[in-house]
Amino acid sequence: MRERLQSIYWKNGKIVIIDQTKLPISLEYKVLENINEVAEAIISMRVRGAPLIGVTAALGLAQVAYQNRDLSKDQLILKLEKAADKLRKTRPTAVNLFFAINRIMSVAYQSPEPARNIIEEALNMLREDIEINQKIAEIGQEIIENGDIILTHCNTGSLATVSVGTALGIITYAHEIGKKIKVYATETRPKLQGARLTMFELLYAGIDSYLIPDTAVAYTMKTKKIKKVIVGADRILRDGTTYNKIGTYQIAIVAREMNIKFYIAAPTSTFDLEKNRESVVIEERGGEEVIYFDKCQIAPSNANVFNPAFDETSPEYIDGIITEYEILKKPFEKNIHTLFKSISRV
Amino acid sequence: MRERLQSIYWKNGKIVIIDQTKLPISLEYKVLENINEVAEAIISMRVRGAPLIGVTAALGLAQVAYQNRDLSKDQLILKLEKAADKLRKTRPTAVNLFFAINRIMSVAYQSPEPARNIIEEALNMLREDIEINQKIAEIGQEIIENGDIILTHCNTGSLATVSVGTALGIITYAHEIGKKIKVYATETRPKLQGARLTMFELLYAGIDSYLIPDTAVAYTMKTKKIKKVIVGADRILRDGTTYNKIGTYQIAIVAREMNIKFYIAAPTSTFDLEKNRESVVIEERGGEEVIYFDKCQIAPSNANVFNPAFDETSPEYIDGIITEYEILKKPFEKNIHTLFKSISRV
Repeated sequence: MRERLQSIYWKNGKIVIIDQTKLPISLEYKVLENINEVAEAIISMRVRGAPLIGVTAALGLAQVAYQNRDLSKDQLILKLEKAADKLRKTRPTAVNLFFAINRIMSVAYQSPEPARNIIEEALNMLREDIEINQKIAEIGQEIIENGDIILTHCNTGSLATVSVGTALGIITYAHEIGKKIKVYATETRPKLQGARLTMFELLYAGIDSYLIPDTAVAYTMKTKKIKKVIVGADRILRDGTTYNKIGTYQIAIVAREMNIKFYIAAPTSTFDLEKNRESVVIEERGGEEVIYFDKCQIAPSNANVFNPAFDETSPEYIDGIITEYEILKKPFEKNIHTLFKSISRV
Repeated sequence: MRERLQSIYWKNGKIVIIDQTKLPISLEYKVLENINEVAEAIISMRVRGAPLIGVTAALGLAQVAYQNRDLSKDQLILKLEKAADKLRKTRPTAVNLFFAINRIMSVAYQSPEPARNIIEEALNMLREDIEINQKIAEIGQEIIENGDIILTHCNTGSLATVSVGTALGIITYAHEIGKKIKVYATETRPKLQGARLTMFELLYAGIDSYLIPDTAVAYTMKTKKIKKVIVGADRILRDGTTYNKIGTYQIAIVAREMNIKFYIAAPTSTFDLEKNRESVVIEERGGEEVIYFDKCQIAPSNANVFNPAFDETSPEYIDGIITEYEILKKPFEKNIHTLFKSISRV
């Protein structure tokens, strides 16, 4: 059994990342020596995936603290604020990025010994990400039976988090503990995270796996005896409505039409109990992301493009939501409320 | 109003084609001077689309007849047989190719004056393709209302036929006669005929049009008020079961879920009243078609790939089948039988 991939490490003040821009061609690690290199790694998507971006920013600030540990608290705070400003500009729509920066900065302001405490807090965040995802994997593996054929979408594995992953973490863990499974992964246009990253992770883990074009979902479900779909989530509302990578919604519709179970896997930090459907804004991205892949042009350069990054899946299509505490079942509104009350978050 | 695109012409013994390998970057015409150039154009997919391949092969043989019109019948037949052999090897799975070659060769064998009759027959095939598609367009435009927002898949336009097209022919004709429409076209992975060719045709015709990734079908249907889906067909069985480009099936499922009308457009030559579902073989193509786009690699080179070229849509998801005679409605089995009886084909 190969050791699990880990996307980011802290090593005596150095940050080591898997350079995801080199995937799937080669697995290369890169050392980030200073805040400029950390910011560049986020901007250039050498690290990507909401949880991983957050941890990278936290470790970036920890590195600033480490390199300036002999300064006075006031001087260190100045350095940190400059670094935090730089990081905030890297991916301005990534919520986890701002959350991580704020968490580290509040330690900086409150601690009498900020350097040490910031490093501790950043390493806690790294560890928490691994632990929570490992719990999701252990709870989620229960839904996977020996012989299952599973379909997944986008990348929700070690490369989207620090390690382990969410939906793909469950799949990989089920394989690790000896369940015999077969996995179909969609390409996930336009950014191709399924083709580039999920297929890399599945092959790395030695899982029997197949890549399919996004057009082949229904035909694959029907002819390849898919038993379950497991995908991640970017945001889950209090009634179970799930925002996830574009393409999730149609996979859910087709799965229900074919009586295939459809599961979401996500940590409780993904839940947003405040917002309504009406107040969630779905990011639309530029057309060039669809018209070009790398240097390959696939459509007329003057084509109009509708390129939504996410879509909204109604709870009626979802059979269960796998969290680090339990698998939430219907009725979601009631069961989500009960879970959040029990963990004192409402 | 711009003149309609025509993919292939006959001009005093020369064959002029739109070189589709140059699309969508540029619209270039290429003159085919002899049978080697005709064969190369088919192999290299300078011309593609089943009806267009058939007409190209017919014109290729007509060119051989034209260039050898002063030979004796026996000598000409020898030349034609050699040329037919070469053409049969170009795209060995294309049924229209063999049909066209056989139609021309049977004229060659039966005619006392083969050169002239072969050229006439090839030009008839070219004209028939245009006329039948024009009838489909005229009949099909009736389903399109002013203000309609339409989704289509793959390429079924001038570039898949001699001119006009089937599903896209209807859409373009509705625009030409002044109906105000908006069209969403899917990319159509893996070969991207929607992105490369349909978007080119829509822009060429001046139609208000948008490219979407294949993952965005359900979200687009829901948020952009899609009223109708119109797609083509590669084969239609006697009960209305339709084989078409991979991705059609899931679009049909999602359309029904959202109460969006789903239409097939195809000439009656596409119907196969003999075969059952069990006896239709769906072509699976190589994985490299998915892993690479041009020189851009998008997945690990050792990934397994499931790459079906077509899928099967049950008649329950289809609201109408638009032919050159009428729009067939449910019950399809009865109405298809009645139509084919009336045109004396059963």
